[in-house]
Amino acid sequence: MDLDDLPTPALVLDRGVLSANIARMNERMRRLGVPLRPHLKTAKSADVARLAVAGHPGGVTVSTLHEADYFLERGFADVTYAVGITPARLDGAAALRRRGADLKIITDDIGVAGAIAAHGASFAVLIEIDTGGARGGVAPGGPELLEIARRLDGAPAVTLGGVLTHAGHSYDCRDEAAMAAVAEDERAGAVMAAERLRAAGLACPVVSVGSTPTARFARDLTGVTEARPGVYMFCDLFQAGIGVCERGDIALGVLASVIGQRRQENLLLIDAGALALSKDRSTAELAADCGFGLVCDAVTGRPHGGLKVASVHQEHGIIASDAPIPFESFPVGARVRVLPNHACMTGAAHETYNVIDGGTEVIARWPRCNRW
Amino acid sequence: MDLDDLPTPALVLDRGVLSANIARMNERMRRLGVPLRPHLKTAKSADVARLAVAGHPGGVTVSTLHEADYFLERGFADVTYAVGITPARLDGAAALRRRGADLKIITDDIGVAGAIAAHGASFAVLIEIDTGGARGGVAPGGPELLEIARRLDGAPAVTLGGVLTHAGHSYDCRDEAAMAAVAEDERAGAVMAAERLRAAGLACPVVSVGSTPTARFARDLTGVTEARPGVYMFCDLFQAGIGVCERGDIALGVLASVIGQRRQENLLLIDAGALALSKDRSTAELAADCGFGLVCDAVTGRPHGGLKVASVHQEHGIIASDAPIPFESFPVGARVRVLPNHACMTGAAHETYNVIDGGTEVIARWPRCNRW
Repeated sequence: MDLDDLPTPALVLDRGVLSANIARMNERMRRLGVPLRPHLKTAKSADVARLAVAGHPGGVTVSTLHEADYFLERGFADVTYAVGITPARLDGAAALRRRGADLKIITDDIGVAGAIAAHGASFAVLIEIDTGGARGGVAPGGPELLEIARRLDGAPAVTLGGVLTHAGHSYDCRDEAAMAAVAEDERAGAVMAAERLRAAGLACPVVSVGSTPTARFARDLTGVTEARPGVYMFCDLFQAGIGVCERGDIALGVLASVIGQRRQENLLLIDAGALALSKDRSTAELAADCGFGLVCDAVTGRPHGGLKVASVHQEHGIIASDAPIPFESFPVGARVRVLPNHACMTGAAHETYNVIDGGTEVIARWPRCNRW
Repeated sequence: MDLDDLPTPALVLDRGVLSANIARMNERMRRLGVPLRPHLKTAKSADVARLAVAGHPGGVTVSTLHEADYFLERGFADVTYAVGITPARLDGAAALRRRGADLKIITDDIGVAGAIAAHGASFAVLIEIDTGGARGGVAPGGPELLEIARRLDGAPAVTLGGVLTHAGHSYDCRDEAAMAAVAEDERAGAVMAAERLRAAGLACPVVSVGSTPTARFARDLTGVTEARPGVYMFCDLFQAGIGVCERGDIALGVLASVIGQRRQENLLLIDAGALALSKDRSTAELAADCGFGLVCDAVTGRPHGGLKVASVHQEHGIIASDAPIPFESFPVGARVRVLPNHACMTGAAHETYNVIDGGTEVIARWPRCNRW
């Protein structure tokens, strides 16, 4: 199978670029002395996961219990479900543990800690810490941390595994110094929480941090036991826009066909629209606004100078350019590859990676584990 | 099965509201004397399609050949594929016709018309007309129309079926008069194109128009033979925001669970984020900006005054409110229903409709036909 034979739109993943991204992050983590527990919410693929855990202890991070199930079935037993658990999901989590998963769940809520303690099944629980992202998590210095820890520790079937944080505000940074500072906030907050637990006589073996920008720019991770970046494997235009990677590091693209020309308006229509690309506009606030994606050569993956997907309808993408579009190069049926703003969102629109390795041959097709 | 038993996030469709929306549009079309060929790119469901075609000739509209295949398998043989065809898709279109589909394809490109003519298989083709949306389509008054028509008409195996247009710029309108004016542009452009074909001695049995706003506000559809609205079945916050429906007409919602509270910041976290709701922000430019969705009571579907999903991460939705959130009503595990900005985008994130009829009982589960 060749790229030319793929029906469009189709998700394309370059294994060489993927492997280089993984190797680069591995080298950084080796220097910082911290193993990865890669977050697989971006890739949702056992094939990608095998590449990402090589040289690490083998644990993975997921964003749904559906992913936990999928990875357990494929040999990944050490799984951290890094979204706050609800009481209704405890039965599902317990079932995964009975099937052999070393599943860690997280909470930041005293009521949920009570439900976990009362459930009766054996659970391993991390307490979610807020180190600045203002999403989930208790304050590392606040009273809730010890309250939740004691509630969990008092339950015979529950193992208090430690603390976990995600410095999501690293995505608000626009330069290396700012990201390094957020990485230090993330580390310091998680370590402070861990030390408070230990000082109170509670166990805290795990000190888990992670986002791709902080993993990329952390200067020191003393006290951290694992990092959970995810999007570093694929990279995307947002990560390139904030300086975490180069555009050439983007391993993921959407192969699309030209379905129309509007020469008077200097526009091309392609068959990758809002569903195939997503409506993510995360580059809108960056210096390089890439619209809904950057248009590249289908084969080389290199940008067609200045062409971007300026707007989307459900199945139509509309390509615009500041310069005149060379329409003779783009007849209806011609193919392009669109680099995504946000790999997690664009990937989720597709069921399968069409894997290439620099050339045009599709060397493998890797399924994804989507939805819930 | 009850709403309370559904794992979240889950797509919920209220059949009573759906049926009322369909009845209202049918009544409008009856008065205008034009049958519907409902667009099923929003619903992507044979169960919904059966309700939508009742009382009409039975033809449907789709946005992918995958949908055409799905609907043919379920008894809908009269299908218009309303996205410009590419040469590479002609084999697939021909295969559907051999299997019994009365498939109509569309084009606005002289090169593609030549490829259709040269293919050899029997095709029925509509010429796409641009009546103002500046997406696909040739100008109704320009030379390309007749050029393409003659190329198609000259091919023995090809049937020139007529003209088709979609006044997508109706979505830019903010009041009834403006939408009525766009509806008249749409009608007049399509009819002008049809008359030019007929004057040239060419056949033009089909004059197909359609968008939900123009179908809702058209005052006269003389010369039009069918209309293709789609989102009217479900409605959404964008349609409500531009005055096409009321919020109470929105049949689709996402059931979600509270996964965290941030009392100091007056925020709630739910497990419906960017993947479950989509990143559609089409209400951003309207008077009522609904964020990423409006938060309603899980059972009644009525808005929790002022709560909306203000931001999204992959699996986290963050609910904000101008008024203090009554946190005691929203413990972790509590359920809400989120009305979508854009039903087409939110629906596409889910594989199944959990169908209710006003109450909390899930009376049916209807599959969707997603992707390509």
